[in-house]
Amino acid sequence: MMIVMKETASDSEIEAVVQKIERAGARAHPSRGERVTVIGAIGDVEQDANVASLGLEGQPGVDRVVPILKPYKLASAQFRHGERTVLDIDGRKVGGDHFALIAGPCTVETREQVLASAETVKDAGAAMLRGGAYKPRTSPYAFQGLGEEGLKLLAEAKERTGLPVVTELMDARDLPAVLEVADVIQIGARNMQNFPLLAEVGRAGVPVLLKRGLSATLEELLMAAEYILKEGNPRVMLCERGIRTFESAYRATLDLQAVPVLKELSHLPVVVDPSHAAGRRELVRAMSLAAAAAGADGIIVEVHPNPDEAVCDGPQALASETFADYAVAVHAAAALAGTETDQAKMGARLAGAA
Amino acid sequence: MMIVMKETASDSEIEAVVQKIERAGARAHPSRGERVTVIGAIGDVEQDANVASLGLEGQPGVDRVVPILKPYKLASAQFRHGERTVLDIDGRKVGGDHFALIAGPCTVETREQVLASAETVKDAGAAMLRGGAYKPRTSPYAFQGLGEEGLKLLAEAKERTGLPVVTELMDARDLPAVLEVADVIQIGARNMQNFPLLAEVGRAGVPVLLKRGLSATLEELLMAAEYILKEGNPRVMLCERGIRTFESAYRATLDLQAVPVLKELSHLPVVVDPSHAAGRRELVRAMSLAAAAAGADGIIVEVHPNPDEAVCDGPQALASETFADYAVAVHAAAALAGTETDQAKMGARLAGAA
Amino acid sequence: MMIVMKETASDSEIEAVVQKIERAGARAHPSRGERVTVIGAIGDVEQDANVASLGLEGQPGVDRVVPILKPYKLASAQFRHGERTVLDIDGRKVGGDHFALIAGPCTVETREQVLASAETVKDAGAAMLRGGAYKPRTSPYAFQGLGEEGLKLLAEAKERTGLPVVTELMDARDLPAVLEVADVIQIGARNMQNFPLLAEVGRAGVPVLLKRGLSATLEELLMAAEYILKEGNPRVMLCERGIRTFESAYRATLDLQAVPVLKELSHLPVVVDPSHAAGRRELVRAMSLAAAAAGADGIIVEVHPNPDEAVCDGPQALASETFADYAVAVHAAAALAGTETDQAKMGARLAGAA
Amino acid sequence: MMIVMKETASDSEIEAVVQKIERAGARAHPSRGERVTVIGAIGDVEQDANVASLGLEGQPGVDRVVPILKPYKLASAQFRHGERTVLDIDGRKVGGDHFALIAGPCTVETREQVLASAETVKDAGAAMLRGGAYKPRTSPYAFQGLGEEGLKLLAEAKERTGLPVVTELMDARDLPAVLEVADVIQIGARNMQNFPLLAEVGRAGVPVLLKRGLSATLEELLMAAEYILKEGNPRVMLCERGIRTFESAYRATLDLQAVPVLKELSHLPVVVDPSHAAGRRELVRAMSLAAAAAGADGIIVEVHPNPDEAVCDGPQALASETFADYAVAVHAAAALAGTETDQAKMGARLAGAA
Repeated sequence: MMIVMKETASDSEIEAVVQKIERAGARAHPSRGERVTVIGAIGDVEQDANVASLGLEGQPGVDRVVPILKPYKLASAQFRHGERTVLDIDGRKVGGDHFALIAGPCTVETREQVLASAETVKDAGAAMLRGGAYKPRTSPYAFQGLGEEGLKLLAEAKERTGLPVVTELMDARDLPAVLEVADVIQIGARNMQNFPLLAEVGRAGVPVLLKRGLSATLEELLMAAEYILKEGNPRVMLCERGIRTFESAYRATLDLQAVPVLKELSHLPVVVDPSHAAGRRELVRAMSLAAAAAGADGIIVEVHPNPDEAVCDGPQALASETFADYAVAVHAAAALAGTETDQAKMGARLAGAA
Repeated sequence: MMIVMKETASDSEIEAVVQKIERAGARAHPSRGERVTVIGAIGDVEQDANVASLGLEGQPGVDRVVPILKPYKLASAQFRHGERTVLDIDGRKVGGDHFALIAGPCTVETREQVLASAETVKDAGAAMLRGGAYKPRTSPYAFQGLGEEGLKLLAEAKERTGLPVVTELMDARDLPAVLEVADVIQIGARNMQNFPLLAEVGRAGVPVLLKRGLSATLEELLMAAEYILKEGNPRVMLCERGIRTFESAYRATLDLQAVPVLKELSHLPVVVDPSHAAGRRELVRAMSLAAAAAGADGIIVEVHPNPDEAVCDGPQALASETFADYAVAVHAAAALAGTETDQAKMGARLAGAA
Repeated sequence: MMIVMKETASDSEIEAVVQKIERAGARAHPSRGERVTVIGAIGDVEQDANVASLGLEGQPGVDRVVPILKPYKLASAQFRHGERTVLDIDGRKVGGDHFALIAGPCTVETREQVLASAETVKDAGAAMLRGGAYKPRTSPYAFQGLGEEGLKLLAEAKERTGLPVVTELMDARDLPAVLEVADVIQIGARNMQNFPLLAEVGRAGVPVLLKRGLSATLEELLMAAEYILKEGNPRVMLCERGIRTFESAYRATLDLQAVPVLKELSHLPVVVDPSHAAGRRELVRAMSLAAAAAGADGIIVEVHPNPDEAVCDGPQALASETFADYAVAVHAAAALAGTETDQAKMGARLAGAA
Repeated sequence: MMIVMKETASDSEIEAVVQKIERAGARAHPSRGERVTVIGAIGDVEQDANVASLGLEGQPGVDRVVPILKPYKLASAQFRHGERTVLDIDGRKVGGDHFALIAGPCTVETREQVLASAETVKDAGAAMLRGGAYKPRTSPYAFQGLGEEGLKLLAEAKERTGLPVVTELMDARDLPAVLEVADVIQIGARNMQNFPLLAEVGRAGVPVLLKRGLSATLEELLMAAEYILKEGNPRVMLCERGIRTFESAYRATLDLQAVPVLKELSHLPVVVDPSHAAGRRELVRAMSLAAAAAGADGIIVEVHPNPDEAVCDGPQALASETFADYAVAVHAAAALAGTETDQAKMGARLAGAA
């Protein structure tokens, strides 16, 4: 933290700031320039959070408070000295040199749909199956998901295909039920700053796929991850899924620059969801190739045996019959970015066989 | 819902869309223009939500889907035929002709602080006391509020001053404890789309102050209110508290145009929180006058007996000694906007007495 | 400028940064903390601009570059030691204690329309007449204004009413023609960063009303003003006219917090345009009262004798017959904010007479 | 254009809207639904622009005006019946199956720098040389470019290498000088809606690289292109260069979804500038691969023989010695997206030779 004093700040105003910083447990280093005095407040992230809470912006004589150190610790690249976190989810690896394709329907609708999607996904060499039983919907009149019924269908698909399951949790009270089937718990964009929920999945210790909020900064995403990590759960994947901008030609703007930057700032794997940003399958392939070429550690994408009949978000789902070809292209793009993967090899083999 | 077909759409593509709409329970009215065909899908909000879920944007031949009717019903001005909702909270009215000033500390810190704030607020003729026991914080290392301990202090302040209490709920599991003291439950900006929490306070039947999300549209705010109303709880206030923009000179951009527009769209009272948008008390008075002059039904503002010592958000709190004068000016601005209030009269009396 | 080095920066990397700063003509003060070294680069705004151009963010060992001093000088409040600029435009004052209402049609359409508007505006006690002869339009197929023909009509209205004229300049090559009639040249939002145009009106020495760009920060607005001031023209008014946000219920989001903040940062008068932000006259009155109550030095608003027949932006124009009443209310709100004005008195008189 | 009437609209209000539409030269088709009447206004883009100018939003009984047809014509994909525009710039092709790499320094600084960059760019198989002689700068105190002196250096580099030159025009009065050297005129992001400048380069007939404004929508970008096309100049490239978002970890957010969507909406080639969005060379390679994989028709990128000494934007320039390798990787990504190019082959040959 660096406190920039006003040009007109008096000695006693400077002294008052120094004392507040020291009472908060950090050390203050004033540095008097020709025109302004700048006070460095040195501490660890906890002390920094305390100093930030002091509201020094409002103190007499203070012009501005400028954060210097990152406000997260466990999520930072420094915390693991530059080594990348590799998650191992029932044998499927994500992060480091491992690229993972996660696919499945947006929403669990029927037994046939889930089982068919799961087979498609498995055959194309994807690493995991996604599918939602609890759906956050802007409208209370829209379909809210099958709930526990949906979880059971996911469990059956998992048993049949052996694919680990990624599914969303919206309410801490549903955690026990979700834990029965989920290999990875997804926290949706709207819940990125639902702090009690983050702490809960932190305590549960299960791998978490944490989606970036619609208007969240990368620092806020990393602070949300920190809530999970702080509870002792280091198994977190970050997910870019598009941010809100002024553009109305697509549902959200996929921010692929987040991929190399999150990998610079943090050791956690970075996954991209092109389906929700695009909102239309015509864009999903192009954006998947772009995400993989940008160095993403994984892609989570929607696929449906019959998208025109989907209950929810059908227009953005890839059709099953195009999925194997798609998977090969995505893995080729990942290889271009230097992410070498077992799945890529498997995908290539499958393509050769086809 | 209006489905605009592409210029190149075939008759069978048009027919397929008509059939999907009718299978969803709505009625389809195709209207063939010279260059494009437009299909109207007519239904109530439930059927509209169903049609919206069909994902017709992805159907062959479809160019765009344009919503026509508002997706909310209970929150709409039409629902009450233009009559405004007036909440009566233990004798304090908000909405219609009634302007309410809600004030108190950001966070409950100590017994002395809460009781002193409550007295200040009462003496200045404010209608209710605000104060947070559970605090959503971006950093897991920051002070998270006193929790149940804080609720007890609020209860004591309420007993002493007779002021109704407004306090935040973050976790549905804390509802019973919060209900013991809260006259109004505040749902914070980060939880505006925490749908299980909204449904829970809807079922609880207690008055709710619902804050607009940091990047939420007014329609999304009204849909969030609809989640509460749909559970049978009609006692909701909408709260504009600043939205995220590119401007870094203040914490958030207070969107005062939301005031007249929300009053046009909905029958619910509209309250403004200038403290969190400004982040600095220097701006709070100007923005409070502006909010009242724009026609707000109430203002919720932070006041602290000793802002420089506040644990959280001190810089944005008004100092107690300036509060009575502030309250008079705000009520004068409300009167200018045509909001006549008992509190205004009380404020004027107090001013005369001072 | 403050250069924050990485924790891993070597002594020679620190030294290299110091040398680059000094070669750019500024002085470097390294301050070695426990974990990071921070280098202050001290200079005036020109040297700061040079240091900013060095691109130190890309140097080995540099973590971040943090600006400390404001990048503008002539526009800053400090430049006039806290004294406010008051413009005197043919006897009408704006700034300091002087509130000015500027009104007229969006676009000059016909002789009748301009003359009728001008009479309405004058009768209600407004300070100046606005009207556009050159119109920036998103579509090349839309009406682009009457051009020189429009300027002649404005000249006639000015001669009849004695009101100073505010009109927009879009192309430096039209400057001589515009100067024949304009008492104030308006630079539109889309041209806020048209740097050659800013320099040109700076050299012309005529009063300028500079509108904030649709997504511009206040600092960028002040830097645009600095381009004009630097050419020796101190007669600049800043104008908030609404910024682009995600909200689609209105054309732009009027950022009234800009009013007190611009008055803090700069000595220049701050004017608000509620018409373009609202896009609908229903909102214009509420937002005008709010702007005046927030402390604006003036309001520029659209009025039309017959808005339903307006060629451009009719829905946002106030109807002439409501304007006198509107003017009284706005002046009352300005008085509430402490802006005492001759016009207010005139407005009050007129109201008394009505 | 579709005019949605209010539920309460009377027959005479409906009739009044119909008449206004027909007076504007378009045809009106009212369609009476159960709850609302919707009036279709059918015309070409000129008539649509007229109807849009009517301000029907403000008419009694009107709820909303919804545009149906795109407001641009010459820029639309339909205008060329799905055929893509391929620009041939002195033998270098862009668009359709042709991918072009455009590279060079941000700013022309010295003879040595320009000539060295040009050789680097040529040797790596790039199609064109970029370099700025006129620089739009936020600060009037920052280096504004070498002007005509810089144009002469570009002319020399062009003569030596045979590379076509892309350079920026900021002021219509500089057009004759710029035309002496420029093969492509760049219109910068801040000038995207400088309509007189657009019309001027339209009349000049020279190829134009039109950058998307910092907060512009794709529709606004296409309308800006329409201003150029309308003057009879069909040789326009669209350029995505990053938009402003809340993210502060990079200078702008590169919106790669714009690539497939612009190619859907328009026949014009789409080029991506990763350098200005990233602001740091560490991100440029990843984002270039991503842009090419997303299907861009070209990339315009900054390269400098000695970035640490660059006068402007050094941190985002690729170093010359890495450029050949970069060019090979970018062409491989373009090939993955199905953009087959002569340059790709050349790049591959060079890579083989290395």
